[in-house]
Amino acid sequence: VALLFYSEYYDPEDWRRAFRRRDPAFDFRVWPDLGDRSEINSLLAWRPPAGAFGLLPNLKLIYSTGAGVDQLLSEPDRPQGIPIARITDLGQIEGMATYVLGAVLRHHLRFDAYAAQQKRSEWSILKHVRASERRVGVLGLGTLGLPAARAIAARGFDVAGWTRTRRSDVDLRHLAGPDELHELLERSDILVCLLPLTPQTRGILGADLFRRLPRGAALVSVGRGGHLVEPDLLEAIDAGQLSGATLDVFAQEPLPREHPFWRHPRVFVTPHVATLVNPDTAAPQILENLRRLSSGEKLHSIIDEERGY
Amino acid sequence: VALLFYSEYYDPEDWRRAFRRRDPAFDFRVWPDLGDRSEINSLLAWRPPAGAFGLLPNLKLIYSTGAGVDQLLSEPDRPQGIPIARITDLGQIEGMATYVLGAVLRHHLRFDAYAAQQKRSEWSILKHVRASERRVGVLGLGTLGLPAARAIAARGFDVAGWTRTRRSDVDLRHLAGPDELHELLERSDILVCLLPLTPQTRGILGADLFRRLPRGAALVSVGRGGHLVEPDLLEAIDAGQLSGATLDVFAQEPLPREHPFWRHPRVFVTPHVATLVNPDTAAPQILENLRRLSSGEKLHSIIDEERGY
Repeated sequence: VALLFYSEYYDPEDWRRAFRRRDPAFDFRVWPDLGDRSEINSLLAWRPPAGAFGLLPNLKLIYSTGAGVDQLLSEPDRPQGIPIARITDLGQIEGMATYVLGAVLRHHLRFDAYAAQQKRSEWSILKHVRASERRVGVLGLGTLGLPAARAIAARGFDVAGWTRTRRSDVDLRHLAGPDELHELLERSDILVCLLPLTPQTRGILGADLFRRLPRGAALVSVGRGGHLVEPDLLEAIDAGQLSGATLDVFAQEPLPREHPFWRHPRVFVTPHVATLVNPDTAAPQILENLRRLSSGEKLHSIIDEERGY
Repeated sequence: VALLFYSEYYDPEDWRRAFRRRDPAFDFRVWPDLGDRSEINSLLAWRPPAGAFGLLPNLKLIYSTGAGVDQLLSEPDRPQGIPIARITDLGQIEGMATYVLGAVLRHHLRFDAYAAQQKRSEWSILKHVRASERRVGVLGLGTLGLPAARAIAARGFDVAGWTRTRRSDVDLRHLAGPDELHELLERSDILVCLLPLTPQTRGILGADLFRRLPRGAALVSVGRGGHLVEPDLLEAIDAGQLSGATLDVFAQEPLPREHPFWRHPRVFVTPHVATLVNPDTAAPQILENLRRLSSGEKLHSIIDEERGY
């Protein structure tokens, strides 16, 4: 049996080394060098290359290289009935918490406003707000969302989180379900989105949601580009309803050169770099799942296709 | 007895309210309304107005509105032998830790480099570095420095701190004295300065120190403007030895309009806003010290003039 790897971002050699360190005989193949295609029982990719599924007659497990799986669920050629697993990697989790905290702090500390003043050689002191007075809302408290929310709370911010269904493991102020979303939004001076992308959450960051935030709120969008209605964000910022945004994910990536986000003074763009999976910590959990697959045991980290995450 | 207050930054009414809430009869006077000058036994100011000391024949205690006292020690008219106290305020400590962490994160996450790319509509992914791989050095582990260093360490960074004399309360990698400064510098990808300003530390952030940092290091200067040799910083950045700097304090404040820092793309200027003292938490400690003064008890938070902090 063999695993087929494909990525536009990662260096396959980092992954090969990580697998071989734990299993020197591990059969790791990198697209497009398939070898005997009938031996490939697993695929590790963010989004597989076009036509790949048709070449893999014995595929038994699909692995996302990230925490999200929406991009796999929406693949038109994906054969039905093959389980989809996702990586839960501590390095990725910590990286996301660090990025999100950095984004929250740049809004909290008004770094964008001070940078604008700097351009005008202007020395003016903006109103000082304590972290404890700054209300941060986090949409999504999953593998990445909950640790990010905790990192913000650890720095003294007034944090609340929201999930679609109520959960028992949330050690923060927790609002749940459509009825309590409004409550989360009206107390979010800074709103962080780390939801999974599902039919219910697609386009959730739009005009209606922005209207329900306090005037002057800031947005940190790090989940998926599909959450954000991009023209609505520009309209909300230009109307002063939002003070600015830090965006790491976009409807189309790379962000097209003519996109207005690039030139907007209150939109900060990073090129989908909030976090990365560490092959060294991810490889063992994949190997364990492949062992379970071959022995017929129950697999871990399998997503619920119905729910979408 | 009465306290005389003077500040260019704070609203005196915030302080008056904070004192009166705890002592409705407290005699709080705001420069230049001195009333009977002989009744004034204490002065609360960052830098007193010119000539103030000559008007206060019964001054017994001088209080800095901040953690630093160098600006008081260098006052030429200051009468000798009057103790100088400084405020140690939790709000101020937390505010500094939050600012410093925000500054460290903007360098760690390469927000400046991504902002430069954004200006060119450029989507390029820079090398991802984990927090645990990023070495941060903190110069000064005093009232403000140690909590700031702890906040950075809590986010997973590889932190070490340096003090002039060895201390017993440092729960981080601790280097001390001139002999170990080199060791701190050569492992500081990001260097934070929160030293007191003394004759020994004036100009410490200069060409010699910058040379000893790893190439491409970043500087966060939040202690005092007098620590930094400003032309040396520009030279080090322009030579690529430093990748950039976040500066909150300057030799001359407000920073003069023609100063090159305003226009340098790798220097981020904030107008001395890293943190503020909260009158509500500072007033009780000042009242307690004034009570001790009147009863002849030992005063707290008195600085050592010889040492300079």
